[in-house]
Amino acid sequence: MISYEFFLDLAIILMSSKIFGLISRKFDLPQVVGALLAGVIFGPMIFGIIEESVLLNNFAELGVIVLMFTAGMETDMNEMKKTGKASMIIAIFGVLIPLAGGFIATAVFKGNLWDMNNTQFLENMFMGVILTATSVSISVETLREMGKLKSPAGTAILGAAIIDDILGIIILSVVMSFKTPEVQVVQVLLRIALFFVFAIVVGLVMNRAFKFVCKRYGRKRRVPIFGFILALLLSYIAEHYFGIADITGAFLAGIIISNSGMAKYVNEKAEVLSYMLLSPVFFTSIGVKVAVEHMSTPMIIFSVILLVIAILSKVLGGGFGARLMGYKMQDSIRIGVGMVSRGEVALIVASKGAAAGLLDQSLFAPIIIVVVITTVITPILLKKSFHHRHPELPAA
Amino acid sequence: MISYEFFLDLAIILMSSKIFGLISRKFDLPQVVGALLAGVIFGPMIFGIIEESVLLNNFAELGVIVLMFTAGMETDMNEMKKTGKASMIIAIFGVLIPLAGGFIATAVFKGNLWDMNNTQFLENMFMGVILTATSVSISVETLREMGKLKSPAGTAILGAAIIDDILGIIILSVVMSFKTPEVQVVQVLLRIALFFVFAIVVGLVMNRAFKFVCKRYGRKRRVPIFGFILALLLSYIAEHYFGIADITGAFLAGIIISNSGMAKYVNEKAEVLSYMLLSPVFFTSIGVKVAVEHMSTPMIIFSVILLVIAILSKVLGGGFGARLMGYKMQDSIRIGVGMVSRGEVALIVASKGAAAGLLDQSLFAPIIIVVVITTVITPILLKKSFHHRHPELPAA
Repeated sequence: MISYEFFLDLAIILMSSKIFGLISRKFDLPQVVGALLAGVIFGPMIFGIIEESVLLNNFAELGVIVLMFTAGMETDMNEMKKTGKASMIIAIFGVLIPLAGGFIATAVFKGNLWDMNNTQFLENMFMGVILTATSVSISVETLREMGKLKSPAGTAILGAAIIDDILGIIILSVVMSFKTPEVQVVQVLLRIALFFVFAIVVGLVMNRAFKFVCKRYGRKRRVPIFGFILALLLSYIAEHYFGIADITGAFLAGIIISNSGMAKYVNEKAEVLSYMLLSPVFFTSIGVKVAVEHMSTPMIIFSVILLVIAILSKVLGGGFGARLMGYKMQDSIRIGVGMVSRGEVALIVASKGAAAGLLDQSLFAPIIIVVVITTVITPILLKKSFHHRHPELPAA
Repeated sequence: MISYEFFLDLAIILMSSKIFGLISRKFDLPQVVGALLAGVIFGPMIFGIIEESVLLNNFAELGVIVLMFTAGMETDMNEMKKTGKASMIIAIFGVLIPLAGGFIATAVFKGNLWDMNNTQFLENMFMGVILTATSVSISVETLREMGKLKSPAGTAILGAAIIDDILGIIILSVVMSFKTPEVQVVQVLLRIALFFVFAIVVGLVMNRAFKFVCKRYGRKRRVPIFGFILALLLSYIAEHYFGIADITGAFLAGIIISNSGMAKYVNEKAEVLSYMLLSPVFFTSIGVKVAVEHMSTPMIIFSVILLVIAILSKVLGGGFGARLMGYKMQDSIRIGVGMVSRGEVALIVASKGAAAGLLDQSLFAPIIIVVVITTVITPILLKKSFHHRHPELPAA
């Protein structure tokens, strides 16, 4: 009878996240920042108008699937192949150092560095994983604006960001498998490998099917919905049969579609589903999870420390990898800086962790602070890194 | 933890309704028919793979809002003005006769024609309301194919179908208000009138705002989401503050957008939301509600009677109205026949009734039979009505 009540919640969420999103854009920030702030402001933290509910959580989960599906579709495999080995090394260091940084910082803050049980270990790992994934879109925009997207640093940043998404997802899958303590690392890695093989086989079959259907019937309109169905099915299969994170499935579904030559069209439709309904609900729901009672002084200090680690670990990790691959000092710094911003994937990992009971919700505030401030700071730092040292200009 | 389980349900619903939809299309039937059958086949009636759930119901309800929103956007007010008075009279008879027919048939079947309490009265009324709304799309397609869309009969059918949607919604609002028995008809009509006035004021303000925003910022991308927010808000306000059916609000939101000159763009995006996710869930959920234990012999007989009444009442009602307005006998029959098919709105009214506890779920099977068979039969009858009598061909 009172089913229509949730229309109001939904309207408030969509309106507030859109309006705050537009304000964010005024400051050259991604709209995600606005949606997060809308959640914090209209959630229990300040006004208490929007509350968590099973329904909103389900919409948010579906939003995550669609976000990872589109992320997969936007993964340009050719771009990745171009920079190849260099990007791989940069990504590996750009993932390992933040992973270690997040892990250690959380362990120290929680006081369990030298003596942690399985649950604590997983929580620390989760905080590490959250710091791994680069949100490259803001760097891409900044580089494009400066005309440096095709520079050595630009190409490396792009390639490495794609790979560190994939690495982040693999590490997440490994971490999530440890819910059951007796699980063995080898076994988990084997499951992940098996799932990737399975997805590749599905991908090959699907690509043939899509092409056949399109050739025979000429209409593309049905491809987006079958793509979305594929994302849902692979997500389910990943968790249910392989025991790895469902978003891995959605991401691989996206990669399968991106190889089908229909990614642009499918992505367009999936994005409508995302921005009209699901992703505002997801980002707002993350903001809603920030609770005022958690913001004690130690928590504020921890937020600042985590933020510093988030920034330094990417600059040092990515930069070190680049240096190792023979990039100049200056370009190495640029590459590291270009990978500082965190975004969607960090939030997705956080919400996965909370949903699985592996991550304390009190940690959402520091995570959001990291996402928002790294996003704000990356374009500024990146511009500085390009403009400040002019001596070797002709080399560009 | 097992949140990912619903991805599988969703995948099955989307896949089955899409595949059955494509099969329906092979037989020149709207995809809705396929989605309904998917629900009947995969629901408890046969395979029992898809079950009702709170989540699916919420998705379905949101689907109804989006469907009514798009229906509103597709309402061509200019078309309606063109045929004006004639369409109005045709629509009134094309609504009143089916309303009476459905009411009496149900009352006789339930054995309460001469002695019904408030609940029974409402259920009978609901069945009447379900028979009122014409699903004009299939007639439009058929007329277009025959090159008769702009014929006198074609124009009249189009205009009348729009008006009977609006009349159907008004009657639904009146009926739903009688949940509380002491409600007075005058009071309800007043509330509906007030809500229409309110919506018109909102519409005027919104149109100015939309135009201002578009002129100032030049980007249309945000209009669809604000349109959708408007649909959600007006739906909520209709139920919560005016006590009338929420879909009235969604429908009026659509009409507001249709007058803004941006209907095409907004409709495109809303339709993606609809066909990618929400409307397959809604139509399948209707099919799922058909339960085998209800299909007793009397119920089958009732289904047949209801079907006959559904067909005859539109042919006679619409035809009589047309005759009254001076259309030739032949055109009057064509007009009546063109209004036989029932579709989305009938199903939406049925689901509203069931959700409000005013309509017994056992009646879903006859309703679906009416929707499917009237949809199948309308193009056949319509073609016959145009082809069979050739004597006065030059008059066309």
